[in-house]
Amino acid sequence: MSDQNPLRLVTLVGSLRRLSFHAAIADSLQTLAPENVQVTRLPSVGLLPHYDADVQAEGFPQTVLELGNAIGEADGVIIVTPEYNYSVPGVLKNALDWLSRLPTAPFAGKPVAIQSASPGIFGGARAQYHLRQSLVFLDSQVLNKPEVMVGGAASKLDVEGKSVTDPQTREIISAQLKSFAAFTMQHKLAIK
Amino acid sequence: MSDQNPLRLVTLVGSLRRLSFHAAIADSLQTLAPENVQVTRLPSVGLLPHYDADVQAEGFPQTVLELGNAIGEADGVIIVTPEYNYSVPGVLKNALDWLSRLPTAPFAGKPVAIQSASPGIFGGARAQYHLRQSLVFLDSQVLNKPEVMVGGAASKLDVEGKSVTDPQTREIISAQLKSFAAFTMQHKLAIK
Amino acid sequence: MSDQNPLRLVTLVGSLRRLSFHAAIADSLQTLAPENVQVTRLPSVGLLPHYDADVQAEGFPQTVLELGNAIGEADGVIIVTPEYNYSVPGVLKNALDWLSRLPTAPFAGKPVAIQSASPGIFGGARAQYHLRQSLVFLDSQVLNKPEVMVGGAASKLDVEGKSVTDPQTREIISAQLKSFAAFTMQHKLAIK
Amino acid sequence: MSDQNPLRLVTLVGSLRRLSFHAAIADSLQTLAPENVQVTRLPSVGLLPHYDADVQAEGFPQTVLELGNAIGEADGVIIVTPEYNYSVPGVLKNALDWLSRLPTAPFAGKPVAIQSASPGIFGGARAQYHLRQSLVFLDSQVLNKPEVMVGGAASKLDVEGKSVTDPQTREIISAQLKSFAAFTMQHKLAIK
Repeated sequence: MSDQNPLRLVTLVGSLRRLSFHAAIADSLQTLAPENVQVTRLPSVGLLPHYDADVQAEGFPQTVLELGNAIGEADGVIIVTPEYNYSVPGVLKNALDWLSRLPTAPFAGKPVAIQSASPGIFGGARAQYHLRQSLVFLDSQVLNKPEVMVGGAASKLDVEGKSVTDPQTREIISAQLKSFAAFTMQHKLAIK
Repeated sequence: MSDQNPLRLVTLVGSLRRLSFHAAIADSLQTLAPENVQVTRLPSVGLLPHYDADVQAEGFPQTVLELGNAIGEADGVIIVTPEYNYSVPGVLKNALDWLSRLPTAPFAGKPVAIQSASPGIFGGARAQYHLRQSLVFLDSQVLNKPEVMVGGAASKLDVEGKSVTDPQTREIISAQLKSFAAFTMQHKLAIK
Repeated sequence: MSDQNPLRLVTLVGSLRRLSFHAAIADSLQTLAPENVQVTRLPSVGLLPHYDADVQAEGFPQTVLELGNAIGEADGVIIVTPEYNYSVPGVLKNALDWLSRLPTAPFAGKPVAIQSASPGIFGGARAQYHLRQSLVFLDSQVLNKPEVMVGGAASKLDVEGKSVTDPQTREIISAQLKSFAAFTMQHKLAIK
Repeated sequence: MSDQNPLRLVTLVGSLRRLSFHAAIADSLQTLAPENVQVTRLPSVGLLPHYDADVQAEGFPQTVLELGNAIGEADGVIIVTPEYNYSVPGVLKNALDWLSRLPTAPFAGKPVAIQSASPGIFGGARAQYHLRQSLVFLDSQVLNKPEVMVGGAASKLDVEGKSVTDPQTREIISAQLKSFAAFTMQHKLAIK
């Protein structure tokens, strides 16, 4: 990472619960990231209204514009999400539904990494493959591996303290962040 | 259909736009349905707040309870939806995310048919397979065929007049409604 | 299960390895099934040639016809499969590709249950959802729950002895077989 | 494309029929490709036996080794495939199942483009998303857009003459090849 400027990554959290597993993971990423990587949490997807083409026709809501700008300016996006009903949470998908209509297309060509967590054993895996399909349409550059799917999350995270306590989980997240930093840097250089 | 009481089907519309393709289809189903089938449109999924476990902890919103009750009392549900970003609209998925938490489990064992429509050629097909995956978790009985995927919807529907104008589209929808009525009746008899 | 005749279930195994987890599970189903249920293993999917429309044009291979007949005569099919590359094994999918062309359509309306197993933690889950999508086209009646996904299979099965040794795994498989027997019986009665 | 050496792309065809749509497309890619791109067709996936871990234990079949080497040496792979039963053809998936076990991991980091064709309107779209999921595991770099899904293929291809006759289809394929050449070149430079 010879670049002087830090790599600016932003996190998009798929759940609204204040003490969610996903908020805890998102808020711990800065400490797990390699040097010269800056991780910032995006505004909550809960701030956006439900997508409605009639509302869009009157102009994009300010919250959508701001979220789009923040993503557009970032070098890469880390989506940290639960799995609801074997798929992507509606509230997260709703944010993508708004963002996909922005003329600025903030996700186009943007490096994206996915992390999921759940109390069960699958760690939200099913949500990830559905999300990947949407990201084909959005034309994002999605990191393949390592996949981060934190199963049995209740015993691996400190949701109050906003940290990942399980050593193995810290390790896989750090490994993904390292891969993602390299992946993102490569895309940044390719664009130049 | 020897039963005296009509089969009560309800429609869940996946888009909020007032003059959407999907509202037009939903509102034309009564005229396309076989005899002794009653089709009623459910309240808009846009009335529900974003799913938030913290909100749920304080009690289910009234709109969620009402939607759940209406589905629970119906003999079958027809979901009429667009495809957003190669998947289920967030706002529709959000409704499922709420409904799936209701202790009454309104979708469990419930017959479901899916119809989608889009301006493009695929007619929303990609949304249907993601929706089917969620409905496995919800334990619904989902009709296989005929699949209704209305491509090029702009020339096949009268969104102002809320009707399906294309004869072939009317035919496939009628065929699905006939199959779904028989499928639903079978489940109704099996439960008795 | 008041019917005099036993329910005839057949198993389709998705791997060719002689001592596979899946063969072990398939061969133990009879002992885990409820009374009056007969479980028979179908011929290996490895006996079928690769699907080739030019071969089909000269007539269906005998192995395809026999497999199709055995499925057609069964009351229900249990597919026991590994996950390869996050999806259905090619060799199993190839069998479906042949069977789907048979004019007798042996999978149409047929009750199907899915079981998967893998050495990893997901137990083959990803293969199941892809398989379900194919079974929509084949118009099968696929059981929703309980889902059987045997993770960490190496410590739960005796592949030499062809048995399921882990008590919890035996329980979930038994529960699925019980549900599937009822599901299959219901379809059998509905057809009459 | 300032590089002196041509970009070497190889095609993997998912159907065995001699006069398949997919063979016709694969064989026409050289004429539709940008300058300094060489397109070669790989040996048929039909030459590989069914994947069997017992066979693998005795050593990889020669056909698998050869296919793996050819892919490993290529700069990028174009998969041209039908959709069977709403998913990837078994015979194509079987080739991936073999190739994924090779210690050389020929698909890892390899740029991949997908093209599908079918007589129906969807042009094989459903197979593409399942294939993409497998390619996450294989860690390939898969091109997002433009997607090539040739619906109504019977009227757009000359299967005897091995050419794409429909102008719009020629255009979209050419556009994808151009994007894929740039995408592949970028990966080639990034590795250096």
